[in-house]
Amino acid sequence: MTPKIARYLAEQQPATPCLVVDVDHVAARYAALSDALPLAHIYYAVKANPAPQILERLVSLGSSFDAASIGEIRQCVAAGATPDRISFGNTVKKVSSIREAFALGIDLFVFDSVEELYKLADHAPGARVFCRLAVENAGADWPLSRKFGTTLKHAHELMLMARDLGLDPYGLSFHVGSQQTQTDAYEAAIARVAMLHTDLKNDGIDVRMVNLGGGFPVRYNSDVPDIDDFGLAIGQAMTRHFGNDLPQMLVEPGRYLVAEAGVVSTEVVLVSRRGGKETDPRWVYLDIGRFSGLAETEGEAIRYTFRTDHDGEPTGETIVAGPSCDGVDIMYEKRRVELPLALKSGERIELLTTGAYVSTYCSTGFNGFAPLSEHYI
Amino acid sequence: MTPKIARYLAEQQPATPCLVVDVDHVAARYAALSDALPLAHIYYAVKANPAPQILERLVSLGSSFDAASIGEIRQCVAAGATPDRISFGNTVKKVSSIREAFALGIDLFVFDSVEELYKLADHAPGARVFCRLAVENAGADWPLSRKFGTTLKHAHELMLMARDLGLDPYGLSFHVGSQQTQTDAYEAAIARVAMLHTDLKNDGIDVRMVNLGGGFPVRYNSDVPDIDDFGLAIGQAMTRHFGNDLPQMLVEPGRYLVAEAGVVSTEVVLVSRRGGKETDPRWVYLDIGRFSGLAETEGEAIRYTFRTDHDGEPTGETIVAGPSCDGVDIMYEKRRVELPLALKSGERIELLTTGAYVSTYCSTGFNGFAPLSEHYI
Repeated sequence: MTPKIARYLAEQQPATPCLVVDVDHVAARYAALSDALPLAHIYYAVKANPAPQILERLVSLGSSFDAASIGEIRQCVAAGATPDRISFGNTVKKVSSIREAFALGIDLFVFDSVEELYKLADHAPGARVFCRLAVENAGADWPLSRKFGTTLKHAHELMLMARDLGLDPYGLSFHVGSQQTQTDAYEAAIARVAMLHTDLKNDGIDVRMVNLGGGFPVRYNSDVPDIDDFGLAIGQAMTRHFGNDLPQMLVEPGRYLVAEAGVVSTEVVLVSRRGGKETDPRWVYLDIGRFSGLAETEGEAIRYTFRTDHDGEPTGETIVAGPSCDGVDIMYEKRRVELPLALKSGERIELLTTGAYVSTYCSTGFNGFAPLSEHYI
Repeated sequence: MTPKIARYLAEQQPATPCLVVDVDHVAARYAALSDALPLAHIYYAVKANPAPQILERLVSLGSSFDAASIGEIRQCVAAGATPDRISFGNTVKKVSSIREAFALGIDLFVFDSVEELYKLADHAPGARVFCRLAVENAGADWPLSRKFGTTLKHAHELMLMARDLGLDPYGLSFHVGSQQTQTDAYEAAIARVAMLHTDLKNDGIDVRMVNLGGGFPVRYNSDVPDIDDFGLAIGQAMTRHFGNDLPQMLVEPGRYLVAEAGVVSTEVVLVSRRGGKETDPRWVYLDIGRFSGLAETEGEAIRYTFRTDHDGEPTGETIVAGPSCDGVDIMYEKRRVELPLALKSGERIELLTTGAYVSTYCSTGFNGFAPLSEHYI
C-alpha cells in the first residue's frame, strides 16, 4: 500500500467496499516498464482498469492502448488518445464495432481466424492487421491460451490471405498468459514467431511488428521476478532470433501497470464457526466477494494479501467468503488464509494489489449490493 | 419461449445482448406454486431477479419476499411490499443493515451463528428469528450448503440462546440447494427439522415456522419433476413428521418463479475453427458471456437451451464462449453443445429459461461491454 493510499484511508474512511487507486503509482510502473523494455511500445490493456483518471495519466505519459471493445475505444478517445495509439486487440469483434473503430481512424486490428479476417477486409479495408498465435501458458496463474490464437501453420495461411484481401499483414502476436511468473515463457514464444517471420519473408511478406502481449506479473502474496528480468529475457530472445533486423515490439501490460496501485477496503461482516465448536472451520465473511469485484479468486487463482489491524497477533486458518447468498461466493477455502484470531465483525481490512481486474468485474447489483465505489487519488 | 416474447423479439428486434421477460408467466408460475403448496407462504427470493416489474406484480398477487440485503429490502418496499411481508434472509448481515431493516419494521431475520445472534439481539431487539440448518445438497445443480447453516446440535443451543437474549426463537430453515432435481431431498431435511422441533419443545420453545427454502428446479435442457411432485413430497413429509401440529410453512422460490419467463437474445460475433482445419474444434463466440450475465455457466453447471434460425438443420459439436478477452469467459467446453453448422456471425440466437440469475450477475462494464438491457413485457 502506498503512503498516499494509507493516508487517504485513515483520513477519509471511505464507505466500504471501495477501491482506492494511487494514480502516481501507475505512472511509476509505466516508467519502470519503459526502462526495462526501452525498445517496446507500451499498449495499456484497458480492460485491467478503464478509469478515466488512469487513461488520462497514461495518455499524458505517451502510452498507447490495447482495447477489447468499441466501448473501451470510446473510453480511450474520451481520455485524449489519438486513433494511431489505439489497437483493437480482441480477436472477436462485432461488425458494427469494426466499422465504428475504422471510422474513428483506428488502423490496427488483431485476428486469429478466417471469418474475422473477412470481416476486417470488408469493414476496415486496407487496415494493418496482426495474427495471434496460440502459445503455451504454463507458468501463468490466469491462462488464456485455449480461447485465442491459432497454429503457426494456419497463421501463415491467414497472413497470406490478409494480403490477398487487401489488408496490410503487419504483425504477429501471442500471449503467454496473465500473471505469468516465468521469464522463459517468452523465449519459446518468440522462437515460434521468428520462425514464422522467416517463412513469411520467403513468401514476400515483411512482418514489421511483434506484439509480445501482456502477462507481466505482480506480487500478490509470493515473490515474482522483477520486470527487468523479463526485459532482459525478452531482449535476449529477440536478438537471438531476429538478429539486427528487429521488428517493432509492442507490449500490452494491464495488471503490471495498475494492480499494485490499488487497495480494496472492506468490512468484516461476520466471523463464525458455524458448528459452534472451536474445531469447526472458521469463516470470515467480507462485504466484497466474487460477484462484487473479486472475480479473479475463481478457482482460488489470484491470492490477495490481507492487511488487518491485528497483523502480528496470533492467526488461524480461515475460509474467506463474500456477503451474498450464493454458495459459490467463496474466495478461499481449499487453500485457507491465515488471519488474526482477534478479527471481529465491523472491522475494516484491506486487500492489497487490487487495482487490476476488480472494479470492472463487479456485478451491477447481485443480491442487491451496489457496485464498489472507486477513489482515484 | 412464450408467444408474447417471440412476438416481441420478432417485432422489436431489440439490440443485443438483452433479456426479455414475460411478467405474466411469472404470475402463472406463482399460481402453480400456490396450488402445489397451498399451506405454504411464498417468499420470493428477490436475488433471482429484482426488476421492479416483477416485484410489483408479485406484491399484487399477495407474495412475500426473501431479501438478501438492505438493498433488496429497499427494492421490495419501493415495489409496495409491507414490512410484515419481508424476511431478511441472509445469515450474513451488516449491523447497519440490521438497524435499517428493523427501523423499517422488518421483524423476521435468519441466523446461523453466535455472532449474528448477538448482532440481532443488539440491533433488532425482540425480533422473530429463525435458524438455518445445514442439510445435504446432493441432487442440486447449484449447491449452497457449505457456506450456510449449522448443525442440529448447535442450532438447538442457538435457539435457546436466542430466547435468553430476548429474541423470539420463531423458526427453523434449511435449503436443499438451488435447481434441486430430487423431490426426496426435502424428506431428509424435514425429518431433521422435526427432530429439532421436538427437542426444542422439551426445552419450552415452540417453533412455529419451518422455512423450506427454495431450490425448485426449472427445465433448462433436461426434464425435471413437476412442482406438484415437490408439493406432494413436502406435504407428505411434513404430515409424517409433524402430524396434525403443522407449523407455518415458508418457501423461498426464486429460479422457479422467473427463470422460464425470460429469454436472452444474443448475437453470434464469430464462428471459427482456429486451427483452420475441419477437424479443429468449432468455437461460437456470443455477445454475452460469463461476465455479462451467464455467471451460472461456471463449471458448466447450468446448461441453457439455444434456439437458432437453423434449428432442425445439421449440427456439430460446438464450444460456446463469451466476447471478452478473458480466457475463462467460456460457457461450454467440456460438455460441448450441438449447434447448427450453418450458424454464422451476425445472426441472432436465443438462450431460453434465462429469467433468473442473469441480469444481476452482469458486470458493470467488463472489457468495456455495457450491461445487457432488460425488457419486461
